Amino acid sequence: MTELRILPLAGMPEVQVGDDLGELVTGVVELEDDDIVVLAQKVVSKAEGRVVRLDDIEPSARALELAGDLDPRRIEAILRESVEIVRVRPPLVIAETRHGFICASAGVDTSNAPEPGMLVLLPEDPDASAARIRERVQELTGRTVGVLVTDSFGRPWRQGTTDVAIGAAGLPVVLDLRGKHDPVGYELHATMIAVADEIAGAAELVMGKVEGVPGAVVRGLRLRGDARARDLAMPADRDLFR
Amino acid sequence: MTELRILPLAGMPEVQVGDDLGELVTGVVELEDDDIVVLAQKVVSKAEGRVVRLDDIEPSARALELAGDLDPRRIEAILRESVEIVRVRPPLVIAETRHGFICASAGVDTSNAPEPGMLVLLPEDPDASAARIRERVQELTGRTVGVLVTDSFGRPWRQGTTDVAIGAAGLPVVLDLRGKHDPVGYELHATMIAVADEIAGAAELVMGKVEGVPGAVVRGLRLRGDARARDLAMPADRDLFR
Repeated sequence: MTELRILPLAGMPEVQVGDDLGELVTGVVELEDDDIVVLAQKVVSKAEGRVVRLDDIEPSARALELAGDLDPRRIEAILRESVEIVRVRPPLVIAETRHGFICASAGVDTSNAPEPGMLVLLPEDPDASAARIRERVQELTGRTVGVLVTDSFGRPWRQGTTDVAIGAAGLPVVLDLRGKHDPVGYELHATMIAVADEIAGAAELVMGKVEGVPGAVVRGLRLRGDARARDLAMPADRDLFR
Repeated sequence: MTELRILPLAGMPEVQVGDDLGELVTGVVELEDDDIVVLAQKVVSKAEGRVVRLDDIEPSARALELAGDLDPRRIEAILRESVEIVRVRPPLVIAETRHGFICASAGVDTSNAPEPGMLVLLPEDPDASAARIRERVQELTGRTVGVLVTDSFGRPWRQGTTDVAIGAAGLPVVLDLRGKHDPVGYELHATMIAVADEIAGAAELVMGKVEGVPGAVVRGLRLRGDARARDLAMPADRDLFR
C-alpha cells in the first residue's frame, strides 16, 4: 500500500442551479484513473435545484403538532422528505429519508442555503447524481473515477458529526473481508468495512464547513467496483436501534 | 488548505508485550511536527499486555445466562469490560465500556489475538496510552505530534464498521464551529465535527485488516489542541438511542 493523498477542490465557483459539476470539478483538478471525487451534498443539491423557499411551504396539521417552538414550515419540509420519524427531541428531529438514511432533519438544511429563507434538500437520488457526475468526468477527461456524494451525519453515542456517503458510483461502498484470515488464522467474522464512509470523512478533513471547499479528490486507493451508497443503509429488521 | 497525506506504517515488527511503540513507529517513518500518528488499538493493547486466555476465565452466572450458544468465557470477558450491556442479539452484544464507549463486545476481540484461545481487550486508558506514545515520540525525535488510538466500531443504521478514535493526545477531537457563519450569514448551529473519528477512518483506509499495517501517519492538518477521545462519548442524558 502506498500513501493516500487528499486534495481539496479549491477554486470552484459558487454552484448555481443547472451547473455542470463534472465540468466544474475537472476545471480545478487534473484527475487520474482511480481517483475518487468527493462532493458535498450541498453543491450537488444546489446544482440539481433541490432548494425550497420556506414561504412556499404550507405546514400540515402534523407539522404544526410536531413543531412546538420550531418553524412548522421547516418541519413540514422534513416530513415531506421522510418515510419515518425515528425520534423527536426539540430541536432535533431524527428521520429516515426515502433513500433509507437515518439522520437529523431528513437532511433538510438551512445553513449554506443560497439565500436566507431557503432550505436545501438532499438530492432526489444521490446514487444517480454520483453516476451522472462520473459519466460526465469520463466524457470530459477520459478518466475512470469513483464519485461520492457526502453529508455530515450525527450518530448515536458519539459527539459531533462525521461525513458519510449518501451517493456513490464506480467504487465499492463496503469492503467485505469475511472469510479472510488474520495472521494467526482466525476468521475475521465481523469485518465489513464501510470504506465509502471512511473516504467521505477523510475528504471532510480538507473541506471544512465555512471556507468554500465543496469537495476533494482522494488519490491512491485502488478500489474497483460499483455499489450504491443506498446499500449502506442497514435494513430495518437487522437494526437494533430504531 | 493544502493536501493531506496518509502514510501507512509499514514494516513494523509484530508487536509483543512491553514493546516501546514510540520507538517502533519512529523506526519506520520520519515524523514531522503536527503529524498525527494513528495506531490500531490491537497493537497498543498487545504492547500493554491487555490480553487474556479464555482458559483462565471462569464464567459468572450472568455470563452463562447471556451466552446461549456462545462461549460463556468470552461473554464473561465482555461483562468484566463493561459498565452496561446496551443490547443483546446473539451473536451481538453491544456494551458500554468503562471509558464510556458503546460498541460490540465492549471491544473484546478474538481476531488478531497473539494466539488462538486468547482475547485482546481495549487498553485500560487509551487516552493515557496515546499521551505516553506522544511523549515518547517527542523524546526520541523532538517532534510534536498528535496521537490517536483507534478501533473499528459498528454503528446503528449503517452497514459496516468505520474506525474511530478511542484514545487521543495532542489534538482536538471535535472541531466546534458553532457561532461561525456560512457564506450567506447563517449561524452553523449544529456544526461540531468529530475530526478525530474522521482521521481514524482516513487512516484505516491504508491500514487494512489483514496485511499487517498497524497504523498510519496523517500529515497536512494543523490541528492544535489537546483533548481526550473519551470526550467523544455522548453523555447518556443527551443520547436518544440507548
